[in-house]
Amino acid sequence: MPLHASSMSWRRVTFLSVPIKCGQMRFLTAEAKASAGRLDGKLREKTLTLDTLNPQVKAVEYAVRGPIVIKAGEIERYLEEGGTKPFSEVIKANIGDAHAMGQKPITFLRQVVALCTFPELMDSPSFPEDAKRRARRILQGCGGHSLGSYSASPGVECIRKDIAAYIEQRDEGVPSDWENIYLTTGASDGIMTILRLLVSGKDSSRTGVMIPIPQYPLYSAAISEMDAVQVNYYLDEDNCWALDINELHRSYQAAKQHCQPRVICIINPGNPTGQVQSKKCIEEVLHFAYEENLFVMSDEVYQDNVYAPDCQFHSFKKVLYEMGPEYFNSVELVSFHSTSKGYTGECGFRGGYMEVINMDPEVKAQLVKLLSVRLCPPLAGQAAMDVIVNPPQPEEHTFKQFHQEKSSVLGALAEKAKLTEKILNAVPGIKCNPVQGAMYAFPRIFIPPKAVEEAKASPDMLYCLRLLEETGICVVPGSGFGQKDGTYHFRMTILPSIEKLKVLLGKVRDFHIGFLKEYSGLE
Amino acid sequence: MPLHASSMSWRRVTFLSVPIKCGQMRFLTAEAKASAGRLDGKLREKTLTLDTLNPQVKAVEYAVRGPIVIKAGEIERYLEEGGTKPFSEVIKANIGDAHAMGQKPITFLRQVVALCTFPELMDSPSFPEDAKRRARRILQGCGGHSLGSYSASPGVECIRKDIAAYIEQRDEGVPSDWENIYLTTGASDGIMTILRLLVSGKDSSRTGVMIPIPQYPLYSAAISEMDAVQVNYYLDEDNCWALDINELHRSYQAAKQHCQPRVICIINPGNPTGQVQSKKCIEEVLHFAYEENLFVMSDEVYQDNVYAPDCQFHSFKKVLYEMGPEYFNSVELVSFHSTSKGYTGECGFRGGYMEVINMDPEVKAQLVKLLSVRLCPPLAGQAAMDVIVNPPQPEEHTFKQFHQEKSSVLGALAEKAKLTEKILNAVPGIKCNPVQGAMYAFPRIFIPPKAVEEAKASPDMLYCLRLLEETGICVVPGSGFGQKDGTYHFRMTILPSIEKLKVLLGKVRDFHIGFLKEYSGLE
Repeated sequence: MPLHASSMSWRRVTFLSVPIKCGQMRFLTAEAKASAGRLDGKLREKTLTLDTLNPQVKAVEYAVRGPIVIKAGEIERYLEEGGTKPFSEVIKANIGDAHAMGQKPITFLRQVVALCTFPELMDSPSFPEDAKRRARRILQGCGGHSLGSYSASPGVECIRKDIAAYIEQRDEGVPSDWENIYLTTGASDGIMTILRLLVSGKDSSRTGVMIPIPQYPLYSAAISEMDAVQVNYYLDEDNCWALDINELHRSYQAAKQHCQPRVICIINPGNPTGQVQSKKCIEEVLHFAYEENLFVMSDEVYQDNVYAPDCQFHSFKKVLYEMGPEYFNSVELVSFHSTSKGYTGECGFRGGYMEVINMDPEVKAQLVKLLSVRLCPPLAGQAAMDVIVNPPQPEEHTFKQFHQEKSSVLGALAEKAKLTEKILNAVPGIKCNPVQGAMYAFPRIFIPPKAVEEAKASPDMLYCLRLLEETGICVVPGSGFGQKDGTYHFRMTILPSIEKLKVLLGKVRDFHIGFLKEYSGLE
Repeated sequence: MPLHASSMSWRRVTFLSVPIKCGQMRFLTAEAKASAGRLDGKLREKTLTLDTLNPQVKAVEYAVRGPIVIKAGEIERYLEEGGTKPFSEVIKANIGDAHAMGQKPITFLRQVVALCTFPELMDSPSFPEDAKRRARRILQGCGGHSLGSYSASPGVECIRKDIAAYIEQRDEGVPSDWENIYLTTGASDGIMTILRLLVSGKDSSRTGVMIPIPQYPLYSAAISEMDAVQVNYYLDEDNCWALDINELHRSYQAAKQHCQPRVICIINPGNPTGQVQSKKCIEEVLHFAYEENLFVMSDEVYQDNVYAPDCQFHSFKKVLYEMGPEYFNSVELVSFHSTSKGYTGECGFRGGYMEVINMDPEVKAQLVKLLSVRLCPPLAGQAAMDVIVNPPQPEEHTFKQFHQEKSSVLGALAEKAKLTEKILNAVPGIKCNPVQGAMYAFPRIFIPPKAVEEAKASPDMLYCLRLLEETGICVVPGSGFGQKDGTYHFRMTILPSIEKLKVLLGKVRDFHIGFLKEYSGLE
């Protein structure tokens, strides 16, 4: 296997001098050549430094892969190299990465993608006919019948049609037009693209983007990168992180003083908060968006991840439809979905789609143009998305295994959601809302005043760093998602196996109790 | 298979009225409900229209998938639905999409990706051990040994190491540090990301980005989207599209009057122009970048596509190294590569990488942060990239077949490059530079003054539209890439099979002669 070149090894390689012959160049002296990084003894400045970097990039924050996670990686390497810590492994509960936590892929999905990748397998008797039929159909829709061709920028036509059919079925007959479906490179890509269309203006006409707090930090990062204005509306922690319509009004009115709020983003089921919105709540949001002429972005990537028995996923689109044509025919709504979550957890395939409702046809043409610059989403991800929206049916041979695998994943997640809530709530100084859906717990933690004082800027960062260093558990500080001033949280995934999750939660409990003792002066 | 829902079918579905109970909402009258798209009889305006769209998005142009290509799609559908035209099929020579033009995938690459996708195949005797070894190694580097996990944002570590080793070998020992390698979602994604770091400033401090004219329109599109200033330097058509250092100076000095030129982009081998830069030329560019403190972006996605016997690919990095440590230790350079071109043509996998040299460490941390917001490039694309940089070696069983397939693709491309030049140059009023590399011809076409007058804004658009409508051949007008005022070109790929290419070129010839006759008043 290839060797790894040290970054410093160039110093050991003989310098190959090449005469420069252009009339406009000075001939270099031997001295100048020998003086690394300098010409004529003058240090050449870097073109790109932190000072000259695009300030909008500098402003971006993304805690899910932020300082704690970088630190976790360092500790992991340290352990690999034989270093010792009070623990033997780092448990990464920072990111919704199911397979990395041991979840197995859905066999049928992988069979279809493998068949598309290497069509010679169509002759293999070990692949089921159901999978071959789907793979053949996908390849029929690809240029040259190959996954190696670009698709049309909005995606492969037959996959777009399958997605529309899936949405119709999910929404009990509410129609879906396949030409409103756009495949994406994960949901993040779609969210960024739609924001790119919406965000413009300077000074007081800057675009305000309403986002929930706590939020998934893709939103705040995109808003920073695009120099838009982040308009926070706070979810109600005391009411299971529900969205309160009065808070939407407050937030909107306050924002109008200094920007033009044009978009409202909703995450349902919530990330990091795990709440599942009621139908009534969704109606209120949509009515609000209707009245205030807001564009609605509905992040529904956890639509299959609902665990609480009294909760149900309602798509924004279906609710909009049921509110009547005056709403359904006018509110601009984009809904996002992904292969990365649900029961498949296929993050690495970077598959996803968005459904775009009521977009002005001229704007749609602009959207297609913008998508076309990046050519197309990855075809393997598109194929994976197709399996999710077009899974084995009861009459198909593969149905039983598929159904078993799917139920097993979702059943375990429901159990882990409950377990997490229960164990965390038994710890003094931790309060965790029910994990109704999604893949995370976002418990509130009491941090003693002495620790708050010591930490200065971010007490939850101190807490999470200490947790990492003492237990090897990597979670993300609540400040990375946003939280009410003076409250502290962390986000952890519920993805580790039940066994590992119990160990993890036990360690969190012990750490927390120790932390409280230490900072309450009881030690 | 799922049915396709008509966009209009919602009108036929019964309206499901749902009472709205929030205190802050007015109850709706039955009349208001019945009035589609209106509430209280007032038409609700769209939030997002062409007027309110981000003007930077509006400014984006991307001819490779522009109006001509949309028209071609319409004609294709018309033919499919039984319509008649003077031709039976549309030939899409507008985009470098090899598989769509019939090129077969490299077997070994697909075997490795299929094994990674469905590791159960490791037990199959029909997969070669060489491929299994690579797949196992890649999966070892993936979380949970699954292609479904997120990788680190810069990519899978062992793939980054393979890429660094490949670069060292390609550049005859010039060292490459794997920590300077970042996997990307195709090269386009990398180019956009690096520009995003560099572009900022307002008014006269806006960032100037030097690009060749003609260029690949990703550059102009990205520059528009980011509100930077496009600084054109013209390639010398009379000298095989060579880059002339004097023209660089002219362009730079002129740009300095109204912006801050900070970046120079080079495409080598050229797209759409097909020229392969000499070592001397690259030295001149690098010296210029050194002197003027420019950041260098070197688009080298066609590095394997060199056909002219007197031409050779020289990487910018190797030339920089050979210029001595004062250059190699200071000039900031990013080189881009891709799975989409070369002999693999795996566009749909969206694989690619960039090597980043001399970037300020603080800026690198910002780059990683920016990448992390989008989580990671698709894993199947990363695996495909790994095969390209770590192909079968002579001692491996798979070498022979791999080598045959590779040579067959590259040999055919070389033949088609020559054929295209020869046939086009035999047509009166067409002049085509040698296609030294890449995948395109960019012939200059004479358009009679009468046609220029008739076309007004874009005579080459008129020409290409007529060509499409009369022959079914889809090429892209030169104006989409940029050309000197008063000169006209089109870009066509050399990807169709030799047989089809001959037919295509014959049709272009006949069309061109007819066009000349028509507009010279000879008909």
